[in-house]
Amino acid sequence: MNIPSKYIELAVDQVSSLPGIGRKTALRLVLELLKRKPEDIQRFATALTDMREHTKLCNTCNNLSDDAQCSICASPFRDASLICVVADIRDVMAIESTGQFQGKYHVLGGIISPIDGVSPSDLFIDGLIQRVAGGEIKEIILALSATMEGETTCFYLFRKLSAFDLKISSIARGVAVGGELEYTDEVTLGRSILLRTPYEVSLKR
Amino acid sequence: MNIPSKYIELAVDQVSSLPGIGRKTALRLVLELLKRKPEDIQRFATALTDMREHTKLCNTCNNLSDDAQCSICASPFRDASLICVVADIRDVMAIESTGQFQGKYHVLGGIISPIDGVSPSDLFIDGLIQRVAGGEIKEIILALSATMEGETTCFYLFRKLSAFDLKISSIARGVAVGGELEYTDEVTLGRSILLRTPYEVSLKR
Repeated sequence: MNIPSKYIELAVDQVSSLPGIGRKTALRLVLELLKRKPEDIQRFATALTDMREHTKLCNTCNNLSDDAQCSICASPFRDASLICVVADIRDVMAIESTGQFQGKYHVLGGIISPIDGVSPSDLFIDGLIQRVAGGEIKEIILALSATMEGETTCFYLFRKLSAFDLKISSIARGVAVGGELEYTDEVTLGRSILLRTPYEVSLKR
Repeated sequence: MNIPSKYIELAVDQVSSLPGIGRKTALRLVLELLKRKPEDIQRFATALTDMREHTKLCNTCNNLSDDAQCSICASPFRDASLICVVADIRDVMAIESTGQFQGKYHVLGGIISPIDGVSPSDLFIDGLIQRVAGGEIKEIILALSATMEGETTCFYLFRKLSAFDLKISSIARGVAVGGELEYTDEVTLGRSILLRTPYEVSLKR
């Protein structure tokens, strides 16, 4: 692609460095921005630099925050004895949007994945151990992906946390709500039979 | 989606204002940017503002340019008697990448589309008439989309330009190279029979 302006070329280089955006899409986006007023572009650019400059990670749970402590950790209405451990900031937003969880969170910042060079020391696991050692926490829910890496991380955390007097659970794996049995893979279906729930419990949901 | 930082929220608002990018994708991109160094984000933001500030449209042909005249209009190696009329800057890049065209361009900046409120006066048609009136131009190729709006624009330009002593042609419509007859729509197939090319001409390509 022969772009007739070096400034556009530089902008396309930057935009196409984002994941999932190729050079053609980047060019389309840059040409769209070119149609806007200079002050709109300034606002766009400032939003990005401000975001990088002012956003912090919560000292307690590693969640996104504008302050040293995030709004969930600071809230007196959340159950401090119940911690949901997630891999990523987006998982917090996903669980929050269900409205089903009233405890607090702990964001690991990834999962153990030797193939991507992520070892336990790269994750915010020490912070979790410290919180648990504080003594206030009674239950930990491990809400990690049902992948090999997720299960490995669950097992690692389980081993680390079993020294404490805690209830440790994992989120339920099974057939997705609305999912057809016919199209569910064998492993999930097998697990969902082994880990069947008493019908009265299902009714309560 | 409940984003726990107002700076991230603002950045997501801006990024999701781009066409084809929803809030979920915007959040993914913003969180990706958040992982980078502040100076990288600064470079990203500067590339966008610089692009808006320094990029011009060529005075002659309305193509993207860093100077008052674009590199194609300024080139002494391009045939100034042959003009290819296109709707968009990206069409110039697409035709340039074929390496089949040695003339110059004229970018209309859109096509006539009453439904989108684009009338002939919104396009850079006066500039084309002025160039043609200059007398140097001998042939005009209309390279617009084969849509209703494209055909309307072609017809409008043909009417405007027919006052001058010019050869006016339109790019060939027909079965795409590599396309199967079976899957070609009837209108295209019908046109490709009506506008058949002598076989010797096809061989020359």
